[in-house]
Amino acid sequence: MTAPDINSPDEQIRYQRGLEVLNAVDGGSAPAVMENLADIAPALAHHIVAFGFGDIYSRPGLDPKQRQLVTLGILTALGGCEPQLEVHIRTSLNVGLTPTEIVETFTHAAGYAGFPRALNAITIAKKVFTERNLLPVKDD
Amino acid sequence: MTAPDINSPDEQIRYQRGLEVLNAVDGGSAPAVMENLADIAPALAHHIVAFGFGDIYSRPGLDPKQRQLVTLGILTALGGCEPQLEVHIRTSLNVGLTPTEIVETFTHAAGYAGFPRALNAITIAKKVFTERNLLPVKDD
Amino acid sequence: MTAPDINSPDEQIRYQRGLEVLNAVDGGSAPAVMENLADIAPALAHHIVAFGFGDIYSRPGLDPKQRQLVTLGILTALGGCEPQLEVHIRTSLNVGLTPTEIVETFTHAAGYAGFPRALNAITIAKKVFTERNLLPVKDD
Amino acid sequence: MTAPDINSPDEQIRYQRGLEVLNAVDGGSAPAVMENLADIAPALAHHIVAFGFGDIYSRPGLDPKQRQLVTLGILTALGGCEPQLEVHIRTSLNVGLTPTEIVETFTHAAGYAGFPRALNAITIAKKVFTERNLLPVKDD
Amino acid sequence: MTAPDINSPDEQIRYQRGLEVLNAVDGGSAPAVMENLADIAPALAHHIVAFGFGDIYSRPGLDPKQRQLVTLGILTALGGCEPQLEVHIRTSLNVGLTPTEIVETFTHAAGYAGFPRALNAITIAKKVFTERNLLPVKDD
Amino acid sequence: MTAPDINSPDEQIRYQRGLEVLNAVDGGSAPAVMENLADIAPALAHHIVAFGFGDIYSRPGLDPKQRQLVTLGILTALGGCEPQLEVHIRTSLNVGLTPTEIVETFTHAAGYAGFPRALNAITIAKKVFTERNLLPVKDD
Repeated sequence: MTAPDINSPDEQIRYQRGLEVLNAVDGGSAPAVMENLADIAPALAHHIVAFGFGDIYSRPGLDPKQRQLVTLGILTALGGCEPQLEVHIRTSLNVGLTPTEIVETFTHAAGYAGFPRALNAITIAKKVFTERNLLPVKDD
Repeated sequence: MTAPDINSPDEQIRYQRGLEVLNAVDGGSAPAVMENLADIAPALAHHIVAFGFGDIYSRPGLDPKQRQLVTLGILTALGGCEPQLEVHIRTSLNVGLTPTEIVETFTHAAGYAGFPRALNAITIAKKVFTERNLLPVKDD
Repeated sequence: MTAPDINSPDEQIRYQRGLEVLNAVDGGSAPAVMENLADIAPALAHHIVAFGFGDIYSRPGLDPKQRQLVTLGILTALGGCEPQLEVHIRTSLNVGLTPTEIVETFTHAAGYAGFPRALNAITIAKKVFTERNLLPVKDD
Repeated sequence: MTAPDINSPDEQIRYQRGLEVLNAVDGGSAPAVMENLADIAPALAHHIVAFGFGDIYSRPGLDPKQRQLVTLGILTALGGCEPQLEVHIRTSLNVGLTPTEIVETFTHAAGYAGFPRALNAITIAKKVFTERNLLPVKDD
Repeated sequence: MTAPDINSPDEQIRYQRGLEVLNAVDGGSAPAVMENLADIAPALAHHIVAFGFGDIYSRPGLDPKQRQLVTLGILTALGGCEPQLEVHIRTSLNVGLTPTEIVETFTHAAGYAGFPRALNAITIAKKVFTERNLLPVKDD
Repeated sequence: MTAPDINSPDEQIRYQRGLEVLNAVDGGSAPAVMENLADIAPALAHHIVAFGFGDIYSRPGLDPKQRQLVTLGILTALGGCEPQLEVHIRTSLNVGLTPTEIVETFTHAAGYAGFPRALNAITIAKKVFTERNLLPVKDD
C-alpha cells in the first residue's frame, strides 16, 4: 500500500480545497513559505495545505479567530517557532484578532509557559506590528 | 529590598481580588490544588491567585473563553501537564466553551504540536467529560 | 469552504488505505487507541489513520524500520509521551527492529536529549519487553 | 472584578520595589528589554518587574547566586531562550557567579538536557565573556 | 573503532569512581534505578555512573548544592521528569539543600517555566517531604 | 573523589578514540564546533568527543545511518537546535543517508512533533543541500 501521488486528480482537489482556506485566512504570508518547499519537500507543502488547512482548519468546531488563539498559545509554548509565529501573527490580524488581543495572548501565556517564551513572542509581534504601523498597542 | 509578606493587608487585598476571579471561572477545581500547597509552598499558591488570576486573568484584553483556548493550546503543547489540563478543561466548560470546542482545540493542536500531544490532551478530556456525562461529543 | 465529511466515500477510501498501513505495521496496539477516540474525537482518529498512516507512513522515502527509529527519537525527546512510546515500541518490534536496536536508540538519545528522557523511554521498553518475554536484552 | 491599573499608586509602589531588586542584580541589561515593551506590552513589562523581581526574586529562600544557577538551568533546558540567556549570564556575573561556575553549569546541564542545549548556552556565554574580556575561562 | 567494553578493567575503574561520587551524594535512591537497568540497558547504567557522576558531577567547578539547584531547575523546565525529580529532591536534601531552598527553587521556576511546571515539581517535593516528615516547610 | 584530568594519558586515549569515530562520520563540520569551545569549555568539548562519540556513537547496536535517523528525529523534536541540525544533516549525508531520506525524516516528523518543527528542520536542510548542490530533492 503506497501513499497517493500528490499530483493525482484526487489529491489536487484536496489541495485546492486547502488552498482556498489558506488564502481566506492568511492574506499573503503563506505562499512564500510554501513555494520555498517546492524543490525540497513538495509533499510536506502539499499536506500542510491539504491536511492542515483543507481537513482541519476548515472544520466548523472553532472559528478562525479561535483557531488563531489556540495556535498562538501553542507556538509560544513550543518555543523556537519564531518564523511560524510571524506568519500566524499576520494571520491572526487578517482573521480579525486585534493587536490588543494578540498581545494579551502572549501576556496571558507568561503565567503558563514563563516570561521568556512570552517575551520571545512579543518580539515577533513588535516586528509585525511595526511593519503594519500598529504601534503603540492599546493596553487593555 | 525584600518581598512583601503574603499575609500583609495589601497582599491579602490582592489575594482576595484574585480569588474572586478564580471562583468566578473555576467552578470548584482549584481550591483543592491551592489547599494542597498550604503546608509546602504557600507563597506559590498566593501568587498563582494574586498574580495569575488577580493581575492577569482579570485583564480585559481577552474574555475567559478566549483565555481558556490559549491556555488549552499552551498546556497541550508543553506536554506533561495532565493535572493542569484536567483543571483547565473543567474551567473551560465552566466559562462556556462547549465540549465540541474543547475537542476541536486538541484536534487543531495536532497539526502544530503533533498527534501524541493531541492524544494525551484528549485522554484527559475524556476523563472529565465522562465524569460530567458529556459523551458522546457532537462532532460537527 | 468546509472540511470534508469523514464518513464520505472519498474519505472512507483514504481511511481504509491508512488502516491497511496501520494494520501492517502495528500488530494490534492501535485499534484500542483509535476505538477510545470514537465517542469523543472521531475526526482526530480518522486523520491519524488517513493522514498519518495513509498519506505519510506509506510514503516510500523511508522503510518502516527507519520510520520507527525516527519516531522513537522524537517521542523520547518530546517527553511526556509514554503512552505513545509504548505503542511505538510494540510497532518497532513488529516491523523488525530488535530489542537491542530499540534500547540502543534510547541509549544514543541520552547524549542529545539527556539521561532523564532516555531513562523514561527505557522504563517503557522494559514494560513492553517484560510482557513479550524479551528480557534480558543482548547488549550489543 | 478587573485587574488593577498598572499606573495606580499601589501598583507603582510594587513596580518600584521590583525595579530596585532588578537594578541591584542586573547591572544594566534589563532596562533596554523593558523599554522595548513600552509601546506594545507595558503590562507584561510591569509584571515582570513587579511580580518577577518584586514578589519572587526578592524572597529570602535563595540568594541571587542560587537564583541565577536555577535560572541558567531552566533557560538551558527550555531551549530557544538565547536572548534571555544573554541577559541572565550578565546578571549571573553581576551577582558574583564566576565564569567558571557559569560554564560548569552548562557542562553539567549536558547530562540532563543533552549536548545540543549545553552547546547553545555556551555559545551565548562565549559572546558575553568575549565582550567582557573574560576569556579564556579557567577550567576546573 | 568500537566502544570500550564496559566490563573491561579501565571502564570498571571509571565506573567505581562514578559510583563513589554517586554514593556520596545520593543517599540511597539511585541504586534501585541503576539495578532496574541491569537486564535491559547496562551500558546506559554504566555511563550514567561513569560519565554522569565520575566525569561531570565530580568536577570542582560547582559544589553539590549548586549542582542540585541547576539540576532541579532543568528537570522542572523539561517537564515529564517526575521520577528523576523524586531522585534529585532526595539527593538535594542529602547534599544539604533545605526544604525551604528546594521549594523556593520551584517557586522561582514559575516565572521562567510557568506555573504548571512549578506545580508538578512541588507535587513531587510534597511526596518526598511527607515521607521524610519534613512538612510543613518553613516559608521564607 | 574528583573528575579525571582531561589531559591525562587515559583521558587522551579516550579522546583519540572518540575523535577517530567523529572524523569517520562527520566529514569536517565538527572540528570548528570543537575548536570554538577550546577557550571556554574544553571539558565539554572533551566529553562530547570521548563520551558522545568514543563511548556511545561507536557502539555496535545501531549503524551510523540508523544513529543519524534517531538524531535527526530528536533534534527536530527538541526545537531550537538549528546549529546542531546543520552539523547532523551534513553528517547524515556523509554516512550515506540520501537527501530524500533526510527530507522524508522531517516530513515524517510533522505528524509526531507538528508542522512548525518539521518546517524549521527543512529550512536547515535546504541551506545544506543548496551548498552541496543537492537540489531539487527527488520526491519519491
